Amino acid sequence: MRKFLIAFCFIPLASLAQEKVDLDMIGKIKKEGTDNSHVMEIAFHLTDVSGPRLTASPGFMRAANWAKDEFTKMGLVNAQLEPWGEFGKGWQQEHCYVAMTAPYYQPLLAIPRAWTGGTPGKKMLSGEIVLLKIKDTLDFAPYTGKLKGKIVMIWTPTTLKPSFEADAGRFTDSALEKMAAAEPKPQVESRRRQQTGNWVPVEMQRRINQLLNKEKPALILSFNPNGNDGTVFVGGGGSYAKDAEEVPANVMLSSDDYLRLQRLIGNGQKVEIEADVKTSFYKDDLKAYNVLAEIPGTDPTLKSEVVMMGGHLDSWHAATGATDNAAGCAVMMEAVRILKALNVQPRRTIRIALWSGEEEGLFGSRNYVKNHFADPAKMELMPEHSTISAYYNLDNGSGKIRGVYLQQNQQVRPIFNSWLAPFNDMGAKTLTIDNTGGTDHLSFDAVGIPGFQFIQDKLEYDTRTHHTNMDTYDHLVADDLKQAAIIVASFVYNTAQRDAKIPRKELPKP
Amino acid sequence: MRKFLIAFCFIPLASLAQEKVDLDMIGKIKKEGTDNSHVMEIAFHLTDVSGPRLTASPGFMRAANWAKDEFTKMGLVNAQLEPWGEFGKGWQQEHCYVAMTAPYYQPLLAIPRAWTGGTPGKKMLSGEIVLLKIKDTLDFAPYTGKLKGKIVMIWTPTTLKPSFEADAGRFTDSALEKMAAAEPKPQVESRRRQQTGNWVPVEMQRRINQLLNKEKPALILSFNPNGNDGTVFVGGGGSYAKDAEEVPANVMLSSDDYLRLQRLIGNGQKVEIEADVKTSFYKDDLKAYNVLAEIPGTDPTLKSEVVMMGGHLDSWHAATGATDNAAGCAVMMEAVRILKALNVQPRRTIRIALWSGEEEGLFGSRNYVKNHFADPAKMELMPEHSTISAYYNLDNGSGKIRGVYLQQNQQVRPIFNSWLAPFNDMGAKTLTIDNTGGTDHLSFDAVGIPGFQFIQDKLEYDTRTHHTNMDTYDHLVADDLKQAAIIVASFVYNTAQRDAKIPRKELPKP
Repeated sequence: MRKFLIAFCFIPLASLAQEKVDLDMIGKIKKEGTDNSHVMEIAFHLTDVSGPRLTASPGFMRAANWAKDEFTKMGLVNAQLEPWGEFGKGWQQEHCYVAMTAPYYQPLLAIPRAWTGGTPGKKMLSGEIVLLKIKDTLDFAPYTGKLKGKIVMIWTPTTLKPSFEADAGRFTDSALEKMAAAEPKPQVESRRRQQTGNWVPVEMQRRINQLLNKEKPALILSFNPNGNDGTVFVGGGGSYAKDAEEVPANVMLSSDDYLRLQRLIGNGQKVEIEADVKTSFYKDDLKAYNVLAEIPGTDPTLKSEVVMMGGHLDSWHAATGATDNAAGCAVMMEAVRILKALNVQPRRTIRIALWSGEEEGLFGSRNYVKNHFADPAKMELMPEHSTISAYYNLDNGSGKIRGVYLQQNQQVRPIFNSWLAPFNDMGAKTLTIDNTGGTDHLSFDAVGIPGFQFIQDKLEYDTRTHHTNMDTYDHLVADDLKQAAIIVASFVYNTAQRDAKIPRKELPKP
Repeated sequence: MRKFLIAFCFIPLASLAQEKVDLDMIGKIKKEGTDNSHVMEIAFHLTDVSGPRLTASPGFMRAANWAKDEFTKMGLVNAQLEPWGEFGKGWQQEHCYVAMTAPYYQPLLAIPRAWTGGTPGKKMLSGEIVLLKIKDTLDFAPYTGKLKGKIVMIWTPTTLKPSFEADAGRFTDSALEKMAAAEPKPQVESRRRQQTGNWVPVEMQRRINQLLNKEKPALILSFNPNGNDGTVFVGGGGSYAKDAEEVPANVMLSSDDYLRLQRLIGNGQKVEIEADVKTSFYKDDLKAYNVLAEIPGTDPTLKSEVVMMGGHLDSWHAATGATDNAAGCAVMMEAVRILKALNVQPRRTIRIALWSGEEEGLFGSRNYVKNHFADPAKMELMPEHSTISAYYNLDNGSGKIRGVYLQQNQQVRPIFNSWLAPFNDMGAKTLTIDNTGGTDHLSFDAVGIPGFQFIQDKLEYDTRTHHTNMDTYDHLVADDLKQAAIIVASFVYNTAQRDAKIPRKELPKP
């Protein structure tokens, strides 16, 4: 009994008042989002039509401009590309062909790493592979001054294994229950997922890169053991900084191809390559842009306040960033489409943001927050800081919503509990006090603005799509995206209509 | 009791005598095969070093000659390439590059289908894709006479799904028990696995191929929905017959690439391709060859008898046919290596055969059987027919042996039961009366020679490797292959030593 009383004393008052939910509106949102969904059509334009959306690349700009125009067509206002500051160079591949020509002919599955250069000259590069066997920096000596113009790869002892676990999965009931039962704990910003291979210690890899960038081989063949069966994980290999020197051509090979080359060389075979890799850097505009648009608020006292929602529009370049993160953007765009289709007149202004520079460090959202709300390094609050209620983010692939990461904000639990109730039968019922990291809600959280990422089923995110050549439209699951758009639309609507803003945690210290 | 008595009456006498097993020799085979295995080294030479082994192609001949020399090095006798008759043309790809160039640049994962031609001329082919929408032959009219020199693909409504089942699996105890409990049934030759896509009915596909071969487009883009995540299933697309006309260039695309192109065209986008595909046909020697070698028998009365073992050495061409079927060949070669390393002096002659032409219709083994034992169409037995005891085959991937398909030969059950007993603790204990089809033991079975395929764990055979671009050395599992080689060596040794030949089923009718 005592225990109960103590617990009772600490429940904030807000949680005692039953949170109002406009079930009529929720029903309309469900109906519009189910019977008339545009989410796959939106995703098609962001992926297939736009192409890869590396920040500041032509593909990103195609998608951003299409989204801006689409917002206007939907009836949103203030649709714009808002620059957030200097990013650096854009980049894209222009041509990529790599094949083994000896001991026999075999085209290789090869993808240029972002911000790396092309093979020299206009003719096809051809030559024997130099396999560098490097355990420590002492092993650099035999190669120093001898790699210019060569085709190189680094020896790496690795074997692949069959996969006895399914590529795709959903949260089980017990996993969700465990998440729901998590205790509050001090906030630590999650580390971003590592997207390069872990076969060589990071520091050693840095030094090898330095060696190679200095030696200027004609082509570097790279390896990431996370990929198998034709799935290739590939991120950046050079710098987008405006003054950065161009690094040599560098392609990520499929694991099978890389290991075959290595075994053949290890066996004493002369292994020859032909390659023609061309890439372009874009320096005419070093700024990068977020896409913003609004459904204006209508309540005289609340319309100057905003509820924000978003996801990052930029992607890696090996595919079309379908699950990372056209999925999140399509869901957010579909959510505002649903609200406009229902002609909602929200009390607060609803603002959607499609970020850039997320993959390189949440740059788009961080700088937006810094430009509008506060710099987390100083924590001097700007006037807009008091006008924003919450920010909702989606960026964990194509999986449906199973609940919300409360980001250590215990006060929102009863609110979100009420808001999730109409969606429990659609699989969304879990609130975990836990943080989740690695995406743009962190930028808001860092300055004390309630920022939330939804819990999503993983599907094939970690195994097949996240930063791979297989992050394609065909890896999207329409039913999951529809469910997510309906829930997001409801949360955003509820936040816009609520009398009070979403409760905040204590302001972080600068 | 009556039931028992009736059953008793039908048990052949052979099954009542306990089959002798030389456990000392089995122990030595286990030790040699475990501590000193060469199976992965052999597999490396058959795959990485030889390359793809399409029948009558240079890669096949590299592997065949290496195997022949290796047999001689091991101490086998009569190592030779034995021609089995006329096969037709060899083929290999010489160059393959295909990319989308509009609406943006994207290299495509494309693999030439075997026995198809190259793109015309020496320059890079470029042009817009013509998407053929064909439901029935009436739809041919708009395209007739208009496709020459074009780049074409066939519209196919398909969507891909995430995989919630593991790519790799092993037989469960219950699955094995069910197999063991199977009842004898009339023998029906199993259909070979379909290796082309099933999105268009076979007959319609044949007619479309006729149209295209007549129209002579410059490049056909093909699709097989079985592949996903970068795994591409690809077999033949033209004929190896010596007089066959060369068909147009035809590449199998990854599912993701194919569906992206199709969606873009469906959306009204102008989709352009650049491609440079070159292939070679080999007509200088139309014969095809099996590789044979022997460990001679030593028993004066039994040495003229043989026990045979084998697997097919030929493969499809998109990878190096590691699990289909370098695995089986490497296991068989390792099994004879083990026996030679132990300096066994078998009573009967042990003969190993590595077949060709299996993928096109078990041609190598069928013709070997026809040349040496009997033509199943006539069933006139040749003298050698009475000298062969049994044939053991391995061709179901890299998975370890779990037992034997008895191929409706109930009389061998007690014999094989005794022979498997020493390997029960290694996972091999199941005898199923069932047939299994699709590989070379059928050629022996067809003329009444006991021919057996071992039951093998599937691993990733059906999902990732069988007739795909991912059938590579890295998809082999060393421990499984070692186990298989030990069991095969034991079975072959036991067959060579047994007083009587393996009991036969009734002779099939011609």
